[in-house]
Amino acid sequence: MENSRIDLAINSQRLKSDFDVLSEIGRTEEGGVNRPAFSDAHLAARAWFRERIIDAGLKFNVDNAGNHSAILSSDSDIASTLLLGSHLDTVPNGGRYEGALGIVSALEVLRAIKEKQVGLKNHLEAIDFTDKEGTLIGQLGSTALAGKLTLHDTQHPRGGRNRLLMALERAGLTENGIINAKREPITIAGYLEVQIDQSSILAESGADIGIVTKIAGIGSYHIKFIGQTFRAFTPLQDRLDAGQAACSFNIKIPHLIGDYFPECVANVGSFEYTSDTQDSKTASVIVSLEYRALDLSTFELLESALIKLGNTEANHYNVGFEIEFLGKQSPALMNNHFQEIISRAAESLGLKYIHMDSMAGNNAQSLADLCQVGLILIPKREGASHSPYEFTDWINCVNGANVLLQTALRIGSV
Amino acid sequence: MENSRIDLAINSQRLKSDFDVLSEIGRTEEGGVNRPAFSDAHLAARAWFRERIIDAGLKFNVDNAGNHSAILSSDSDIASTLLLGSHLDTVPNGGRYEGALGIVSALEVLRAIKEKQVGLKNHLEAIDFTDKEGTLIGQLGSTALAGKLTLHDTQHPRGGRNRLLMALERAGLTENGIINAKREPITIAGYLEVQIDQSSILAESGADIGIVTKIAGIGSYHIKFIGQTFRAFTPLQDRLDAGQAACSFNIKIPHLIGDYFPECVANVGSFEYTSDTQDSKTASVIVSLEYRALDLSTFELLESALIKLGNTEANHYNVGFEIEFLGKQSPALMNNHFQEIISRAAESLGLKYIHMDSMAGNNAQSLADLCQVGLILIPKREGASHSPYEFTDWINCVNGANVLLQTALRIGSV
Repeated sequence: MENSRIDLAINSQRLKSDFDVLSEIGRTEEGGVNRPAFSDAHLAARAWFRERIIDAGLKFNVDNAGNHSAILSSDSDIASTLLLGSHLDTVPNGGRYEGALGIVSALEVLRAIKEKQVGLKNHLEAIDFTDKEGTLIGQLGSTALAGKLTLHDTQHPRGGRNRLLMALERAGLTENGIINAKREPITIAGYLEVQIDQSSILAESGADIGIVTKIAGIGSYHIKFIGQTFRAFTPLQDRLDAGQAACSFNIKIPHLIGDYFPECVANVGSFEYTSDTQDSKTASVIVSLEYRALDLSTFELLESALIKLGNTEANHYNVGFEIEFLGKQSPALMNNHFQEIISRAAESLGLKYIHMDSMAGNNAQSLADLCQVGLILIPKREGASHSPYEFTDWINCVNGANVLLQTALRIGSV
Repeated sequence: MENSRIDLAINSQRLKSDFDVLSEIGRTEEGGVNRPAFSDAHLAARAWFRERIIDAGLKFNVDNAGNHSAILSSDSDIASTLLLGSHLDTVPNGGRYEGALGIVSALEVLRAIKEKQVGLKNHLEAIDFTDKEGTLIGQLGSTALAGKLTLHDTQHPRGGRNRLLMALERAGLTENGIINAKREPITIAGYLEVQIDQSSILAESGADIGIVTKIAGIGSYHIKFIGQTFRAFTPLQDRLDAGQAACSFNIKIPHLIGDYFPECVANVGSFEYTSDTQDSKTASVIVSLEYRALDLSTFELLESALIKLGNTEANHYNVGFEIEFLGKQSPALMNNHFQEIISRAAESLGLKYIHMDSMAGNNAQSLADLCQVGLILIPKREGASHSPYEFTDWINCVNGANVLLQTALRIGSV
């Protein structure tokens, strides 16, 4: 690489200014941000991103899935596009870094390269993916771009059908449009994202940069135990009590995980008793179940084992059993070549790095079938991620953006 | 007693006509009735009751708790009032018999006595108690009449404060009014109710009439297990998981009951996970708990044992523990003298009776501290009570009303 490229660095002050302005959009009293997909605050953040793109003299683009992009075109006739991205939506009352940091870093990389008039063989596109956090469907924009969004997904969205339809209308999108927002693999050179580590692994390692090797698959189900209605005074031994089966299922999950799947997690997020009064007791209990595993065979084994456990508990309590599949993101391998380039980029900046797995969901998962993907993590200080207490020292953000820049330069160098 | 009184009987056809009309008010597709307190259907049923009272030439009265009454006055200068009653409200999608049967029977008893111009030493009052089923507070009208309704009850109503205030406004009642609706014990000669047995005990015995000896006490709590927020990928062994404690609590309840409280019940009606997204996991789980026992010492022991069990499970899982007291109806003894009179009334009609306990709540509980109370049950055919499938042969309804009539005549005979 030419020296001018190696010497290129992001503008820390401009990056900080962008980050701080963005942190104010949807800011909560506790110091977090609340920008669920297509909320007023999210739309304001998207409008702000568009303005920054235009101010920087970059081309603005919006696709059929509502993904917003800044584009820096290559002079090459045969250029494909290297995507740098993340997302501007957050979980309710989320943190300032997750998603936002990836967006401002990607934008800053394009501005830095544009300013120095560095010619690359790829187009660069800083992309804000729609609904990463699942207010509507989850990884909506990246799944759509990878051509994997189906009618089933839009008919059975995680946040409910009504919310999806209202949000699409609000954003000027259509169901048909988001299902047909696929980009052709040949047009995409790869995807890179810089993200704050949501675990404490990286911080505990003492390294500056985490290079992700695998992202865990995430599956979710509604597990339904169907008991018989009984009265509040029905003797306990005469009941077919769905709640008992559901509770027994839940407390056996940690044993299943501990004994057979020690690197996996399974999460019960809610119990829904179908009773509509306190007196006319429950027929059914619906358990919201999610599970995560890092490789495909374990992921599938874990899924089977959890369903079998539910079935066994239902049989033991003599109640019915039904499952409703809600959605799945398969485990994804990050591209080896990209990992290698990221490590060289970190080395060139004098940064210490580790290779690590990630149990947190990321748009890189949806894109892994479409193109080569790479995920760059920076450490977070102790404190919960996805919360107002999400925090990292600013130097880590600068490091992350510079590694993203150096990686993009290396991929794009002729 | 005079022969004219012994020969007196209710008009089965008129009773049936009333019962059938009432079954149509709030009738559901499945053949049940849906008349939650102060719903349109409930107000329509109350308006119908008022009309029937006036048609029968009886005096109509409404008190500060919204209890509606038909009054047949005694000629005696020192008469107190014998209350005959039940309730016109139902649980959502309830049955046709519970409550309604007691009301039409009470009204019919007053009409039968009025027609034959039988003089009694007591005033007779057929009373429809407000909100027995707990849409708002539960046994609201009878508790108020007994002078036991407190500001705490109206501030923390089972159905929520807003619903209570809206319902009171709808019914033209005030909070101050219902708290001060007490009647003086010296003015009340007793309370009698005829009711369909909500268990299958009476039907299985083969008897025509059940004479209740005790009504179970009912207590309810919110049991809160307070864990720490964790992320969906937090290793299971690192979590302080309130859901695990709540589930362990629930599945140990049947063992506690079976081993130490075999005649009691405890019911878990819902689990509320406080998480507002699937990804930002739960801090707390709130378990709705209800328990029932037939005598006061067992009732209090059971309450302590359940709270201790919750505390033990919370400690075991290293999560916090809080309880919120929701309400209590103490176990109530039915009056021995009234039981004796009911048994003589049944005998005089050639009906077979048994003495039995009741685990179902009844307004007689609230009134047991105010006056002598008696509860007359008729058998239900197999099938769930509090449901559209609640059913009994008509002859049982006639029997119940005639036992109520003969009991009232015996209590009121000079």
